[in-house]
Amino acid sequence: MNFTQKLLRLSQKNNSLLCVGLDPDPALMPEVDVVEFSRQIIEATKDLVCAYKPNFAFFEALGTDGLRTLEQVIKHIPGDIPVIADAKRGDIGNTARKYAHAIFEVFDFDAATVSPYLGRDSVEPFTDYTEKGVFILCNTSNASAGDFQQLLCDSRPLFEAVAMKAAEWNVHHNVGLVVGATQPKSLKRVRALCPDMPLLIPGIGTQKGELSSTVRYGVDTNGQKAIINSSRQVLYASRGKDFSADARAEALRLRGRINEARKCIDQSSE
Amino acid sequence: MNFTQKLLRLSQKNNSLLCVGLDPDPALMPEVDVVEFSRQIIEATKDLVCAYKPNFAFFEALGTDGLRTLEQVIKHIPGDIPVIADAKRGDIGNTARKYAHAIFEVFDFDAATVSPYLGRDSVEPFTDYTEKGVFILCNTSNASAGDFQQLLCDSRPLFEAVAMKAAEWNVHHNVGLVVGATQPKSLKRVRALCPDMPLLIPGIGTQKGELSSTVRYGVDTNGQKAIINSSRQVLYASRGKDFSADARAEALRLRGRINEARKCIDQSSE
Repeated sequence: MNFTQKLLRLSQKNNSLLCVGLDPDPALMPEVDVVEFSRQIIEATKDLVCAYKPNFAFFEALGTDGLRTLEQVIKHIPGDIPVIADAKRGDIGNTARKYAHAIFEVFDFDAATVSPYLGRDSVEPFTDYTEKGVFILCNTSNASAGDFQQLLCDSRPLFEAVAMKAAEWNVHHNVGLVVGATQPKSLKRVRALCPDMPLLIPGIGTQKGELSSTVRYGVDTNGQKAIINSSRQVLYASRGKDFSADARAEALRLRGRINEARKCIDQSSE
Repeated sequence: MNFTQKLLRLSQKNNSLLCVGLDPDPALMPEVDVVEFSRQIIEATKDLVCAYKPNFAFFEALGTDGLRTLEQVIKHIPGDIPVIADAKRGDIGNTARKYAHAIFEVFDFDAATVSPYLGRDSVEPFTDYTEKGVFILCNTSNASAGDFQQLLCDSRPLFEAVAMKAAEWNVHHNVGLVVGATQPKSLKRVRALCPDMPLLIPGIGTQKGELSSTVRYGVDTNGQKAIINSSRQVLYASRGKDFSADARAEALRLRGRINEARKCIDQSSE
């Protein structure tokens, strides 16, 4: 079963497009250790998500044992849930192969995020793992995303050039794109260029992307293949003893709002 | 003492623009462990280099103890030698801060490479460490670098737009650029746009960049601030018992050829 099949299966089982980003930050967490915190978050939300997305940065920042901690966190995720390594790696071919090895073989992630800046060489070592998903950064959710991504290259913004190259590189049908929720018009444009690709969509929570247009423009024609990520809004719903119950409540609320927005698309297209 | 001062001091002491990339690959190494291999390479070349550049990918690929191995390798590098983390990280602000923390505080690297695709937000958490150097990917040495970096944006290639933004972001005078040796014209153009920045220049060895034009176009007006990297050509000069002596011979040869090219510039400009 490849990444997209695994994603669709769980997304349907849990009736969810919600991905929870596992970005444990001791400065924001209740006073438990990172593995225990993550375990409780996973336990509280595992029937509400379509995927989990740990970000390497938060584990590397823990120190030289950080990757061991990451390994322990992942072990708590049930096997039918897709796990996306948010790593945003991008290096020359022989080095990219090492990163791909680390992510897909050392850790056995189901998918990874990669940067497009170095072109095909830097992406192919990831897509060569044909059962794994590879999400190429396209139009990101941060304030300065436009510094380069919105530059006009031959009369189209750079992020569209990335989306078109991604489609060209998608020979194993395992490529997706990262498109932030903060710019709905760009999301709409990317979905039009790549109608069948899974889109990983951060930026709905702390970053204040608008949810209903995110869902409307993000899903494919079957109302699927949008992976709508929230990290801080779920993880740090509260810092008290009930943090995991509060995280669950927030995940429930987000899944509900996403599904309401999906219903509205169905009604408006009837 | 900030990164550039440390670089210039060692570059003059060792009369060298050569950086050795520490990319230990068990498939290419003689049969010793990674820390011992790296220690011997460092011991054999430490009077011939201006910097070392370990690449995170090769350590992450070793497994969950990889970062601990990296830590042990770095400890063998004498304190007056600048150590550049080749990590090519690029993420949104709050995540980039975690990567910067890992690289500059957990490991105490002197400099790091970062990707520009996410714009200013993703670079600033690194440049905020004003004593550290930050090398932004500009025009890389790999075959597919042109997929995006050579796209014309407002009549100039994307990599030039990156160089110009890097100059704008260089408020703490700690920004440098990564420019491959494989495209001398681009290197010349970047040096013209950013006359004072340190340039990290990979691609002279296995990737077949031409050395004399690399030196001519890479250095600043004082014949400095070009950090010319070789990884595989030095590390894997041979696989026998004498691997470190052979690595030394190769580093000596490269330093010599670089310095000859520097002399030719002096003569031609007299």
